[in-house]
Amino acid sequence: MLEIIAFDADDTLWDNEIYFRESEQKFYELMSDFQPKEVLEKQLYETEIRNIALYGYGIKSFTLSMIETIGVVTHNSAPYETVKKAMEIGREQISAPVTLLPDVVETLDRLAASKKYRILLVTKGDLLDQQRKLQRSGLGNYFSNVEILSDKRAEDYQALCARLQCKPEKMMMVGNSLKSDVLPIVSLGGYGVYVPYQTTWQHEVAEKIEHPNFYEITRLEELWNVINRVDINLR
Amino acid sequence: MLEIIAFDADDTLWDNEIYFRESEQKFYELMSDFQPKEVLEKQLYETEIRNIALYGYGIKSFTLSMIETIGVVTHNSAPYETVKKAMEIGREQISAPVTLLPDVVETLDRLAASKKYRILLVTKGDLLDQQRKLQRSGLGNYFSNVEILSDKRAEDYQALCARLQCKPEKMMMVGNSLKSDVLPIVSLGGYGVYVPYQTTWQHEVAEKIEHPNFYEITRLEELWNVINRVDINLR
Repeated sequence: MLEIIAFDADDTLWDNEIYFRESEQKFYELMSDFQPKEVLEKQLYETEIRNIALYGYGIKSFTLSMIETIGVVTHNSAPYETVKKAMEIGREQISAPVTLLPDVVETLDRLAASKKYRILLVTKGDLLDQQRKLQRSGLGNYFSNVEILSDKRAEDYQALCARLQCKPEKMMMVGNSLKSDVLPIVSLGGYGVYVPYQTTWQHEVAEKIEHPNFYEITRLEELWNVINRVDINLR
Repeated sequence: MLEIIAFDADDTLWDNEIYFRESEQKFYELMSDFQPKEVLEKQLYETEIRNIALYGYGIKSFTLSMIETIGVVTHNSAPYETVKKAMEIGREQISAPVTLLPDVVETLDRLAASKKYRILLVTKGDLLDQQRKLQRSGLGNYFSNVEILSDKRAEDYQALCARLQCKPEKMMMVGNSLKSDVLPIVSLGGYGVYVPYQTTWQHEVAEKIEHPNFYEITRLEELWNVINRVDINLR
């Protein structure tokens, strides 16, 4: 039987990427006197990707990337007010509400009631921001462990499994990012369940795979059946 | 007997605060045309404290606070170049070397060789930055758990103990911050060992206490004796 059912947080349990989309739109609007949207979009994304190694994921990193992009697209000639407004965009996003996605509470309730699995939250991003969102979500008590990682590559899941003393083959990871939630755990012999969200950051886009341990569902309520199917096969 | 010996990281195992002092000096230099050092110091500190709830601790938070302070002290009239230079100050600090403090390796070696305790790293700050420093330090293998927290108040230690299934009375925390490393664990019934560092951020300053579970040492090599003394009392 499976031992661990791990959930991604952003865009799996609650909305997140739409707030980045909103912030990006505000940023393009702010900078519209300097460059057309397409150029801004490209520059911001390039800056973000370049900065991941330095700043990691999350909203503070995004804010710093906006500020840096301002310099790039204005050849360092922007007034301070523009920088200030970019910081406000970031701040507004930090204060965004936490809206649960459909089926989340019902699914976690059902899993908790079964008492068969350790239920985990495994997310990456900004430590404080993720903790704050978890707190606002009211879901904290469902999870035996909350793991906030700086990245979600196969090696990060391997280290996580070692820490939790669980074999990857006994772990299922559920999330909206093929690249970060699903493919790494499948590559380690575990189970990945892909629940697409309405929008995906380009950096998280990956190809689907054909693999017996890979599942795709359209709603979280289907998860229970997937878990049962896997458990029957593992018996 | 004690079960867990937990170490703070920054300024307990390696230099950190001196790099913040250096960055602050560079920032005061950068802004010296606008305000005298005393005013800048006060404004930067106020901005940092105000931003803790929003951004948390660490170098990205500090960088955003520098950028915000530029606006405050120039009445939003600074050129973009100033913002860019502040970002560079932050970036340079991220790339600072990790220099181990005296006795660190010997102390961890001795503790590891005794095989009597779980050795933990418990730090707060920026997730990626702390992981990067740990990796550069080469100390990773000494620790059974690495806990990067968003804050280190009594309630954070309580949650940590619950997670580790260890009573606070069986835990000793070693660190350079009375406020974050020593007093909270003592208040929970655990043991706190204070190892002062050459400089302390104002925000971390606290009064020493008289308490049987409070110890102060001047060098980490004295820790072994403190542990033995506590263990004898616990028997």
